[in-house]
Amino acid sequence: MMRALHPLDFLFLSLEKRQQPMHVGGLFLFQIPKDAAKTFIQDLVADIRLSKSIPVPPFNNKLNGLFWDNDPEFDLEHHFRHIALPHPGRIRELLTYISQEHSSLLDRAKPLWTCHLIEGIEGNRFAMYFKIHHSMIDGVAGMRLLEKSFSQDPQHQGITAPWCVANKRTKRLTDPEAPISKFKKFTNTLQSQLKATPTVLAELGCALKDKKNHHPDYVSSFQAPSSILNQRVSASRRFAAQSFELARLRSIAQHFNVTINDVVLAICSGALREYLLSQNALPKKPMIAMVPTSVRQDDSDVSNRITMILANLGTHLADPLARLSTIRRSVINAKQRFQRMSSDQILSYSACVYSPAGFNIVSGLMPKRQAFNLVISNLPGPKESLYWNGARLDAIYPASIVLDGQALNITMTSYAGKLEVGLTACRNAVPKMQNLLGHLEDEIVCFEQLMTTCNQDSINTMQHTQPS
Amino acid sequence: MMRALHPLDFLFLSLEKRQQPMHVGGLFLFQIPKDAAKTFIQDLVADIRLSKSIPVPPFNNKLNGLFWDNDPEFDLEHHFRHIALPHPGRIRELLTYISQEHSSLLDRAKPLWTCHLIEGIEGNRFAMYFKIHHSMIDGVAGMRLLEKSFSQDPQHQGITAPWCVANKRTKRLTDPEAPISKFKKFTNTLQSQLKATPTVLAELGCALKDKKNHHPDYVSSFQAPSSILNQRVSASRRFAAQSFELARLRSIAQHFNVTINDVVLAICSGALREYLLSQNALPKKPMIAMVPTSVRQDDSDVSNRITMILANLGTHLADPLARLSTIRRSVINAKQRFQRMSSDQILSYSACVYSPAGFNIVSGLMPKRQAFNLVISNLPGPKESLYWNGARLDAIYPASIVLDGQALNITMTSYAGKLEVGLTACRNAVPKMQNLLGHLEDEIVCFEQLMTTCNQDSINTMQHTQPS
Repeated sequence: MMRALHPLDFLFLSLEKRQQPMHVGGLFLFQIPKDAAKTFIQDLVADIRLSKSIPVPPFNNKLNGLFWDNDPEFDLEHHFRHIALPHPGRIRELLTYISQEHSSLLDRAKPLWTCHLIEGIEGNRFAMYFKIHHSMIDGVAGMRLLEKSFSQDPQHQGITAPWCVANKRTKRLTDPEAPISKFKKFTNTLQSQLKATPTVLAELGCALKDKKNHHPDYVSSFQAPSSILNQRVSASRRFAAQSFELARLRSIAQHFNVTINDVVLAICSGALREYLLSQNALPKKPMIAMVPTSVRQDDSDVSNRITMILANLGTHLADPLARLSTIRRSVINAKQRFQRMSSDQILSYSACVYSPAGFNIVSGLMPKRQAFNLVISNLPGPKESLYWNGARLDAIYPASIVLDGQALNITMTSYAGKLEVGLTACRNAVPKMQNLLGHLEDEIVCFEQLMTTCNQDSINTMQHTQPS
Repeated sequence: MMRALHPLDFLFLSLEKRQQPMHVGGLFLFQIPKDAAKTFIQDLVADIRLSKSIPVPPFNNKLNGLFWDNDPEFDLEHHFRHIALPHPGRIRELLTYISQEHSSLLDRAKPLWTCHLIEGIEGNRFAMYFKIHHSMIDGVAGMRLLEKSFSQDPQHQGITAPWCVANKRTKRLTDPEAPISKFKKFTNTLQSQLKATPTVLAELGCALKDKKNHHPDYVSSFQAPSSILNQRVSASRRFAAQSFELARLRSIAQHFNVTINDVVLAICSGALREYLLSQNALPKKPMIAMVPTSVRQDDSDVSNRITMILANLGTHLADPLARLSTIRRSVINAKQRFQRMSSDQILSYSACVYSPAGFNIVSGLMPKRQAFNLVISNLPGPKESLYWNGARLDAIYPASIVLDGQALNITMTSYAGKLEVGLTACRNAVPKMQNLLGHLEDEIVCFEQLMTTCNQDSINTMQHTQPS
């Protein structure tokens, strides 16, 4: 059952170095049912350890030269750990543990994943932390696979370990783009892109013309200022996470007539600004975020194509509404460019415009002129509450990758009415990064207060280029 | 502060592969004082984490090509972890955790050690597990260094983390053979050994003559039968540990007029026999143990030279006293050979006689004819109880290295009136290895019962070559 490494797998494996692990993680926080037996977690763990289920691909695949191969010595003891948090078992102790685990490299002699079941969390909770190499599975696909092994039914018993989800079930429940088939799609995509080149070149010309006309919202791919986020990274990670009510963000978006994503970017921008001010490291120019965005052409286009847009975060602006306005128009501008093109053309365009950033990532070189300061992604997640043997999944926090020149990553997902924020950073390059969580809350409160004083047209009428 | 790798360091590093990690470990079990604050462990951990003490060599040394170099990015978060055991926090859960930790390779990009502080152990206890690469420090020296960072005074407060023991203190308290100077001694030893060659050759002739005469207790270096202990090993370890009262072993030794070490080997032999019978894998020939032994010439010889002797464990014999007798005379025979030689000659002799085994280990080849079936070592430890900020050190369990062809290691130490036994094995080659602990207890009980029926001359008058 050997299968050759796809060039993308090879890329992610090549990029990995001690200071730059290439795995992603998911932190899943569960509420133990009130009526559960005292041995609830012990039973869960015993089920997992004693389970005779054979792990399904890719969970039983290990590296063998330029191939993925079945691991003949598959050893669950290596992959699955059961520990408890030290007292007092707060989220703080949990995040300390996850930060340490997220810092260490996966063992390449084994299938590239580990799963930690963590008990002893205050409020009668437990957590699962799943860590998997980016070459094994796409982060989103991995999160989905895990979500699919849970149930919407609180009464549903008899779990299967996520890595043992029966083949049949995997095919039925998981993303149609399974790890193997996604590579075929990738190759097909490359072929369509070659055909789309002429249109893209015309569009690029249009973009450059916009720039010459000093269109105020235009964000070129070389405009990002240097900042402390764009240093070489160390091997040490800090992970921080928090949940925010989506209803609060929705109210703000409705009041100011923008999208929830605009609000999300605005609160990230405000929090970043606060943090950088506290570090005495705020760049004078606005910081640029690379934002993976869904680009759906029309209702008939069922495929959910993702491309990257560069968003001007307006971090140089002291006024929150001015920042929100800048972000809104920068995103609209980017999306408008995309609307003139087909999906394939969009991907080609993205590849052209952002290739210097891509090239730097691929070559492992530290970019001298970065195209963007950080990646902010917001992935759609499950809308309904999920359960694991009756234990309600309270929160899902994604932990991502930081790279040389990209020392902070903000990855968010939505889940059951909440925005789940995971911050991953190099501990040295971005000191006291966990303070960003408090700043995010402050920003939401700030917009909530502005709602009482400003009407919904505020952001359209105000000056947006005024520096702080 | 770069210093070249010593050939021995290089050897230990070269021998390492995924299936054969070359680190040693120490598991230290502490009793929390009855009157301790509820935050006792939190305070201990906060002290360690907030301590500004700079780690001393070798704890701040990392590999840099063929050199040891200071780690400019030394990150305590990588080396020090604080976790808790899951419920019910028995020794069983502790050993599961240690088995998993002892299986994984240390990260070569960092100083080659980690320290785990583990709370939540039943009986108001906590543990420290210290793991360090054999190239960094000798196992015994490492254990001693840790012991020295504890105190004999239960009232003594204000700990220093073992890796931060002030330089001055290290020199005063630790073994005079500090990690660096031991290599000079090693070189000097090699030079003396060259001079000793003629005497050694004569002694070797004598040994061979003994063999021709079919001396019944003679154990040559090629006599070990093949067994399940002498397979290739997997990457998965099992660690098991238990304490036994030295007083019980001392009574047995006095009753039968043998040494405590003879009794220790005899109970190991009996336990091994039981275990191998249960696995339907007992070799017909007696199994041979390699036993590091102190060879002191006379009272004026203060240096405590260690050499290896091969001991016939008599595992083919059903009668416990016949086994004890075989072991006793095999050890005396080996020691008598050594008494005719100077210390340097002994080392040369050992090198000659055991070199095939040594060669196999050095070359990383799996021996076809192994010189011995397993290593059984019994290291002297502290006689008085030690304390860490008032917490009594209840037990010290050594975890050692297994190699291809040596799938089980038994390492023991004495501490405060107890024999502390640590068993390290490949989980696949030696299944259900933890059963050996029960067999050890059974053997002690068996000898205690024999004390009531047999007098002290029993082992000298009985047939010892009678097979079972």
